[in-house]
Amino acid sequence: MQKNNNHLIIMAGGIGSRFWPMSTPQMPKQFIDILGVGKTMLQLTVERFSSVVPTENVWVVTSGKYRDIVASQIPQIPLQQILLEPCMRNTAPCIAYVSYKIKSKYPNANLVFSPADALVTDLETFGDVIRKALDFTLDSDCIVTLGMTPDRSETGYGYIKAADRSSAEIVKVEAFKEKPDLATADKYLKDGNYFWNAGIFVWNVNTVISSFEALVPDVASIFRSISDRGVFYSQQEQMVIDEEFPGCPNISIDYAVMEKSTNVYVFPASFGWSDLGTWGSLYSHLKMDSNANAVVGEGVKLIDCKGCLVHTSQENKVVLQGLSDCIVVEKDGKLLVCKMKEEQHIKEWGQN
Amino acid sequence: MQKNNNHLIIMAGGIGSRFWPMSTPQMPKQFIDILGVGKTMLQLTVERFSSVVPTENVWVVTSGKYRDIVASQIPQIPLQQILLEPCMRNTAPCIAYVSYKIKSKYPNANLVFSPADALVTDLETFGDVIRKALDFTLDSDCIVTLGMTPDRSETGYGYIKAADRSSAEIVKVEAFKEKPDLATADKYLKDGNYFWNAGIFVWNVNTVISSFEALVPDVASIFRSISDRGVFYSQQEQMVIDEEFPGCPNISIDYAVMEKSTNVYVFPASFGWSDLGTWGSLYSHLKMDSNANAVVGEGVKLIDCKGCLVHTSQENKVVLQGLSDCIVVEKDGKLLVCKMKEEQHIKEWGQN
Repeated sequence: MQKNNNHLIIMAGGIGSRFWPMSTPQMPKQFIDILGVGKTMLQLTVERFSSVVPTENVWVVTSGKYRDIVASQIPQIPLQQILLEPCMRNTAPCIAYVSYKIKSKYPNANLVFSPADALVTDLETFGDVIRKALDFTLDSDCIVTLGMTPDRSETGYGYIKAADRSSAEIVKVEAFKEKPDLATADKYLKDGNYFWNAGIFVWNVNTVISSFEALVPDVASIFRSISDRGVFYSQQEQMVIDEEFPGCPNISIDYAVMEKSTNVYVFPASFGWSDLGTWGSLYSHLKMDSNANAVVGEGVKLIDCKGCLVHTSQENKVVLQGLSDCIVVEKDGKLLVCKMKEEQHIKEWGQN
Repeated sequence: MQKNNNHLIIMAGGIGSRFWPMSTPQMPKQFIDILGVGKTMLQLTVERFSSVVPTENVWVVTSGKYRDIVASQIPQIPLQQILLEPCMRNTAPCIAYVSYKIKSKYPNANLVFSPADALVTDLETFGDVIRKALDFTLDSDCIVTLGMTPDRSETGYGYIKAADRSSAEIVKVEAFKEKPDLATADKYLKDGNYFWNAGIFVWNVNTVISSFEALVPDVASIFRSISDRGVFYSQQEQMVIDEEFPGCPNISIDYAVMEKSTNVYVFPASFGWSDLGTWGSLYSHLKMDSNANAVVGEGVKLIDCKGCLVHTSQENKVVLQGLSDCIVVEKDGKLLVCKMKEEQHIKEWGQN
C-alpha cells in the first residue's frame, strides 16, 4: 500500500440543528469542541486518520460560509483542498465534485470518505480497519462501507445488511436499510447480519468516476465537463462551481450509487463509534460524576443535581441546583434548559 | 412648606449579594433594571420623589467604585452631590457626612433619607406621606420614620413598635425591633402596633446635627471639623474624606441615634412598599403568565414550566422546558438555575 496515495475526504456541510444552541447554522457542531477536550470534531476527525492519510492528502467539502472556519481549524491543509458547495445538494454531487477534482491531479488516488462529526474511541482498531479497507480497494473496483457492530436496538441509525457471512473480514452487502422502528431494530440486533451505517466508505477514485458515469450520468457529465475544461485548481474554479453545482440533482450517494452497485462490501467493525447525533449520545460519551452529571465548561458548580448534561463553555461561572435529567446549554446569548427526554424538540425550538 | 428646601438623600452603597448573578459587586441591584421596566432601581427611586424633592436637591451616598454608574444613571444631579465613601461604615457615618455637607450650604434643609433599591407601587399615597412627614419635621426636632402596615408575618424585616396609637397620623415610637422569628412576627401582626421598618426617615438637617452632637460625638467631631475647615465643595473634599472617613466607627443610625432619641415618630402607611430583598419578593411583584411564570428578558420561550422566575436581560434567545419553581438568571457569563425555596443560599454560591 502506498501511504501517500491515500486521500481523506471529510464531508463537513451539516448544520447540527439538534444541538442548539451549542451548535448553530453560523457555527455547527463539527466545528465545536463538543467533548470539551480542546479539539473540535473536525480536528479530531483529521487526527483520527493521521496514521493512514498524510495531512497534505486531506480534503474538506463544506458550505462556502464555513471556509474560514475550516481554514482556521486545520490550517495545515492547502486552501484548494477546501471545496465549497454553493448550496446543499446532498452527498452524491459533493462526492462527484471532490472525486473529479482529485482524479485530475491524482489519477489513481485511493479515497476514504468520512463525516466530520462522529466519535471514535478505539483509534488503533480504527486505523487497522481503514488500512485494510484501503488495501481492499487499491486494485479493485469495490466499494467498502464500514458497518458498526450494533450493541443495542438503535433506531437512530441506518443499517447495512451483509449477505450470508463468510469467514472473510469484508463481505458483500445485501441491502441498505433506512432507520428502523424499535421492533425492526430488535430483529436486526438478534439477526447478527445487520450493521450500523457509519457513513464512512472507501473506494478508489476510478471506481467513483466509473460508478457516476454508469449510474448518475447527469452529475457525471457536469463534473467531467468541468474537468475537461481545465477548471479545477484554476482561478475560475469557484465561479464555475457556483454556477453549475446548483444544477445537480439533490441526491444521496446511498440512493444514487450504493443501492444500485453490485460491488458494494461491508467491513463489520467495532471501534467505539458514535455519530454523536443527539445530546443523549453525547451525554453517554462524557465523563460523569457520581451523580451521573456530565459537564463541559469551566467553573460549573452542581448542587443536588443528577443525570444532567451541562455545556456552557463560554460561561465563567455556573451554579445549578436541584435539576434532574436536564440538558443545560448556554452559548452566545442563547440559553437552553430542558428535560433530556424532550431533546427531539430542540431542533424546532432553536428555529422558532 | 418650601418645596425647594426639601432634600432627598439616597443611600446606594449596598452590594445586593442575594441577587447573584444579576447583581454583582461590580453592578449591584440598585443600579439594575430588575423589574424589566426600562429604569434601574436608583432611577425609580429618584422618580418616586420627584413631586416632593426637586432634582437639584437629590444627593446620593455610595461607594467610590459606583461613582460613574450613578453619574450615568442620574446625570441630572450635580457631581458634587454624589458622595463617595472610601469604605463601608454602616449608616451613621454616611448620614453624618452628607448632613454636615448639606448643612454648610443649606442651613435649614429638610431631609428625607431613602434606600435606593425598594419598590413602591402606590406613588400617589407615597407622595402624600412624604409631604406630610416633611411638614412634620419642618419646624420641629422630630425624627419621622415610615412604618409599613404589615399584611403578613414577615420575618425578613425589622419592625417599629408604635406607642399606644392615638388618632394622630404620626405617632411616637416605643421601640425598634430586630427581624423576628415567625412566632414573634405572628404576634406583631396580630398586635397591630408593629410596622415594618422601611429605612426611610425624615428630619431636618439641624435635628440630624444636634442628634449626632449629643449622641454620637466622635462621629460629629470628625465632620464638624471637616466643615469648619471649609473642605466641603472644595477640591480637597474627596482626599480628606478618604483619609478621615475610615476613622469613623462602624455603626448604624438605628443603633447610634434612633434607639436613643426621645423624639422619634413613626408614620404608619401603606403604599405598596417592598424592599425587594430576595428573588421571592421580586417574583411576587412581577407580572406572571397563566402558569405563574415571571420573566424579565427578551425572547424567552417557556414550555411546560410553572412558578419560575426568569431574569436573562442580556440573552437574545432563551428556551426553558420542564422547570417548576425555579429561578433562572444569566448575566455576564454567569448562570444560575436553582429551586426558589433554596434562594437563601444564592449569596454563598455567588461568593465561592
